Amino acid sequence: MKSKITELAKRRGLFLPSFEIYGGASGFYDYGPIGALIKNNIEQVWRSKFVLKEGLFEISSPNIGIEDIFIASGHAKHFVDPIIKCKKCGKVYRADHLIEEYGIKTQNLSIKDLSEIIRRENLRCISCKGELSDIESFNLMFATYIGADSKKAYLRPETAQHIFILFNRLYEINRKKLPLGVAQIGRAYRNEISPRQALIRLREFSQAEIEYFVFPSEKKHERFSEIANIELKLLPAENEDEIKISVKKAVENGIIANELLAYFIARTYEFLREVGIPSEKIRFRQHEKHERAHYAIDCWDAEVLTQAFSWIEVVGIADRGDYDLKAHSKMSGKKLTAFDGEKHVIPHVVEPSFGIDRIFHCIIETAYRDDGKRKFLKLKPNIAPYLAAVFPLLTKEELIKKSHEVFALLKNKNIFCYHDVSGSIGRRYARADEIGVAFSITADFQTLEDDSITIRERDTTEQKRVNIKELAEILIKLRDGEIRFNKL
Amino acid sequence: MKSKITELAKRRGLFLPSFEIYGGASGFYDYGPIGALIKNNIEQVWRSKFVLKEGLFEISSPNIGIEDIFIASGHAKHFVDPIIKCKKCGKVYRADHLIEEYGIKTQNLSIKDLSEIIRRENLRCISCKGELSDIESFNLMFATYIGADSKKAYLRPETAQHIFILFNRLYEINRKKLPLGVAQIGRAYRNEISPRQALIRLREFSQAEIEYFVFPSEKKHERFSEIANIELKLLPAENEDEIKISVKKAVENGIIANELLAYFIARTYEFLREVGIPSEKIRFRQHEKHERAHYAIDCWDAEVLTQAFSWIEVVGIADRGDYDLKAHSKMSGKKLTAFDGEKHVIPHVVEPSFGIDRIFHCIIETAYRDDGKRKFLKLKPNIAPYLAAVFPLLTKEELIKKSHEVFALLKNKNIFCYHDVSGSIGRRYARADEIGVAFSITADFQTLEDDSITIRERDTTEQKRVNIKELAEILIKLRDGEIRFNKL
Repeated sequence: MKSKITELAKRRGLFLPSFEIYGGASGFYDYGPIGALIKNNIEQVWRSKFVLKEGLFEISSPNIGIEDIFIASGHAKHFVDPIIKCKKCGKVYRADHLIEEYGIKTQNLSIKDLSEIIRRENLRCISCKGELSDIESFNLMFATYIGADSKKAYLRPETAQHIFILFNRLYEINRKKLPLGVAQIGRAYRNEISPRQALIRLREFSQAEIEYFVFPSEKKHERFSEIANIELKLLPAENEDEIKISVKKAVENGIIANELLAYFIARTYEFLREVGIPSEKIRFRQHEKHERAHYAIDCWDAEVLTQAFSWIEVVGIADRGDYDLKAHSKMSGKKLTAFDGEKHVIPHVVEPSFGIDRIFHCIIETAYRDDGKRKFLKLKPNIAPYLAAVFPLLTKEELIKKSHEVFALLKNKNIFCYHDVSGSIGRRYARADEIGVAFSITADFQTLEDDSITIRERDTTEQKRVNIKELAEILIKLRDGEIRFNKL
Repeated sequence: MKSKITELAKRRGLFLPSFEIYGGASGFYDYGPIGALIKNNIEQVWRSKFVLKEGLFEISSPNIGIEDIFIASGHAKHFVDPIIKCKKCGKVYRADHLIEEYGIKTQNLSIKDLSEIIRRENLRCISCKGELSDIESFNLMFATYIGADSKKAYLRPETAQHIFILFNRLYEINRKKLPLGVAQIGRAYRNEISPRQALIRLREFSQAEIEYFVFPSEKKHERFSEIANIELKLLPAENEDEIKISVKKAVENGIIANELLAYFIARTYEFLREVGIPSEKIRFRQHEKHERAHYAIDCWDAEVLTQAFSWIEVVGIADRGDYDLKAHSKMSGKKLTAFDGEKHVIPHVVEPSFGIDRIFHCIIETAYRDDGKRKFLKLKPNIAPYLAAVFPLLTKEELIKKSHEVFALLKNKNIFCYHDVSGSIGRRYARADEIGVAFSITADFQTLEDDSITIRERDTTEQKRVNIKELAEILIKLRDGEIRFNKL
C-alpha cells in the first residue's frame, strides 16, 4: 500500500520529493496541489478547534532564531545525535543506527557506551567495510548567520521557544491574567543524519504547538466536564498492556498527572477523530522515566497505528513545569513571571505539540481505498482537497454553460471546487474519487428545465437531487456535519 | 502616526520585535495574537481570489533549497549587496547607503564606481571617522548545510524557484496542458545588511507568489473581458506623470506588454481594494530598463502610498519570458517543456509576487483612526481579526449566561470572535474598536425576553437589533459583502 500511495502522491500531486531535477535531498518534500489543499484543511480544522474554540492566542514568529534562545533552551548543547564516519569511503552514520544494523540493541546508551560496543565488536562501515572514526556529537539544528557581522543563529527546531521568549508581552496583552494559552502553526527544522520514511521523518516539517501557561497550583480546566467521560486507550509507563479508561478516572487514579494535561489529551483525541483517524487506531502512550526530559512532570504521546510504520507518535502532550520560562529568565536576566495576587511566580506550562506532516500521512493512509473496482480517498468533507467537483453530464454546449454557472456560484461562496469537462462522466468521477473530492455535482438535462442538480457522495456513490439555489448551503452543512447526505 | 501604530502594535499584539528579551535582531518581527489573525485573513482572501477563483495549483515547498537551485537562478552569484567595513570600529555598511549619507547619489553604480567615489571623496566611517576597507560583494541569502556531510543549501530568497524546479511534475498533474498557474504562500529570506523600517524591510518575510505558465504565443486570458474596463493609475517608464487608463487601452496602446500581464495587474488591483487599500493610494509603476532584469519582457510594481514611507512596492508583476525554466533546464540537464501540438517549447511565465508583510503594513496604516475621541482600526470585515465580540450589557449573571450562549453559537459556526465581560460596556467597545473588531454583539434585558440582540457596527457605532437565530448568517453575509449594515 505504501508504494500505491507514493504512486498516487506523485501522479496527482499529494506530495513530491523536493529538488528532484537536481537529484533530490532526503528529508525534504513538497506538498503538491492536492496535498497542499489537504494540509491547509488540517491546519484550518486545528485552528478552529484550538485557537478559536479554546480561545488561544495565535502568533507567528520567524523561523530563524538567534543563538541565545537555543543556548537557554538547551538545544545548542543537548539536541545532538552521535555520528560516526567511515575513514575509507567517508560515509556518515548515526552511531546507534549503525550498531543496530549489526543486530545489537542500543536503547539509552551514552556515546561512551556506543564507542565501547564498536571497539569491542570491531564494527566496520556497512557499505565498504572500512574502519570507523571516533563518535562525535552532531547538533541537529541548521545553523546560519545573520547580517554582515555574522551573528550566529539557528532554524528553530520547534515553534515553542519563540512563544516562551515572548511571554511577558503576551501576558500583558492578555491583561496580566492566567491562564494564557498561545498557539503557533509553522515550520520547524531538524538536520537529521539520514532521514527515511517520507513524511514521517523530515528535515523541514510543520508543527502546530500550544503553550498553555497556568499558575502551578491551578492545573485544571474550567471546561473539564465537557471531556471528562471520553474513553481513551492509554498505555501507562508502568503497564505492559493498554487500558481503556475515561479521562476523569485516569486523573482520579493518578495515571495522568493532572486535569489540565488530561484535558488537552482529550481534546487531542477529539481532533484526531475530527480529521478522520478512527478511534481504534489512536492510543496515548506515557513516556517512561528514561525517555522523559528530567524537568517534565508527565508526558504522553498520541500514537496512531499505521500500516507503513506501525505505531507512530503524531502529538506529544507534556507538562513541562516551569523549566522553559526559568531557563530563558536565567539566560536573559529578565523576569518571566505572573502575579497571583500575592506573589510573582513563574507559571507552569502544558504543551500539546502536533506534527502536521505525520497527521497528514495517517489521514491519507487511513483514507486510501482500492477494492479493485474503484479507488478513492475516504476523506472527511472538512479535509477533502475539494468539497465539490462540478461537471456537465455530457459535453454539450448548454450543459457545459450551466455547469460553469454552478461552478461560479460555488466559488463565490468560497467553496473549494473545480470544473471538469474532460472525458466521460465516469472518468471524471474516478478522477475526483481518487483525490478524495467529497461531492460531485452534475448538471444534466433536467437541470436545464427546473434548476435541480445532482449531488453524488464519494463513498457511497449515491446521488440526490437538490435545487441549485440551495446547493452551496447544503454543501457547507454537509461539510460541517450539520446534515447527513442520506437525509437530504 | 508611525509611533502611534508601533505603540498599538506592542500593546495589543499586532506585531512585536523578535527576540526582544535577548536584545533583538533587526529585520525580524513576530506577529502577535491580533496581527496573526489579520495576516491569516489577508492570506485567506488571497487564496480565495487567486487559488480558488483563478483555478491555480497551490503548492507548499521547503524553505530550504539546495545550492544547485540558486546557482541556476543566478542568486548565488548576483543576489549581492556591496558592503564596506570600518577598519577601526568594525562597523559594516552597505557601500551605496554610506555614500548617500554623505549626500552623493549612487543610482546604478558598479562596485568599481562606488569604490572610486569613496577614494576620490575620502569618505570615512560615519560613527568613528575611521578608514574604510575595500568594497566586497555580500550575498543576501542565508546559507546553511544539510546533513553530516554538509551539503550546501540556502534559505529561499523567494518562493518562486521551488515552483520552477517542479514544473515537469506540475505539468503532468495538469494533464500536460497549458496554461498552468501555480501559487505558493510562504516564508522567504534576505540577509539584509541593515534593515530598518519595521515590516517593510524584513530579513524573514511572507510572500504569496504566482507563476503562470503559457505558450509564448498565448499571452492572453480567457476572462480578460471581466477586467478590461477597470481604470488604473499607471506610471509608464517613459512618463514623468501618472496616467489614468483602462486595462484594455493600456494593452492596445502598447503601454502594458500583453493581455496576460495586464490581466494580473488588474486582478492585483482588485485584490488590494478587497483588503482595504483605497484606489487613490494604488498605482502601477513600470520598471525602467535599468531596473529590469535583462530577461524580463515587462515588469510593473503595484505601489501603495504610505504616510510612513511614501510610495512603496507591495506587489511585482513581471513577464519573465522563458528565463527561469531555461536556466534550470540548463543546470539540471532536464527538459522543462510543454507540447503545443507541433513542437516542445519552453513556456513563458508571468509572475505576480505579493509581499504580505508590506500589504499588512499598508492595511493597518490605512485603517488607523484617532479623532481624539475614539480610536479604531477601520478594517474591512473580511480582514478584521475578529468578525465579532460578544458582551453582556451589564455584568449580571443572567446576561453573562446569555452572552456565553451566543458566543458558543458563533464559535460553532467558525466565526472568529471573543467574549469579554471586563469593565463597562463602553470600555469593551473601545477595546474592540482599537483592534478593528468588525461588529460588537451585546446581550441585554430584551435579549432575555425575545432572543433579539444588538449588533453594533464599528465604524459608525450604529446599532441594529436582530434575532439570535439569524445572527451567524447575518454576520457572514456582512463579512462577504452580501448585505449592508444599514439595510439590516
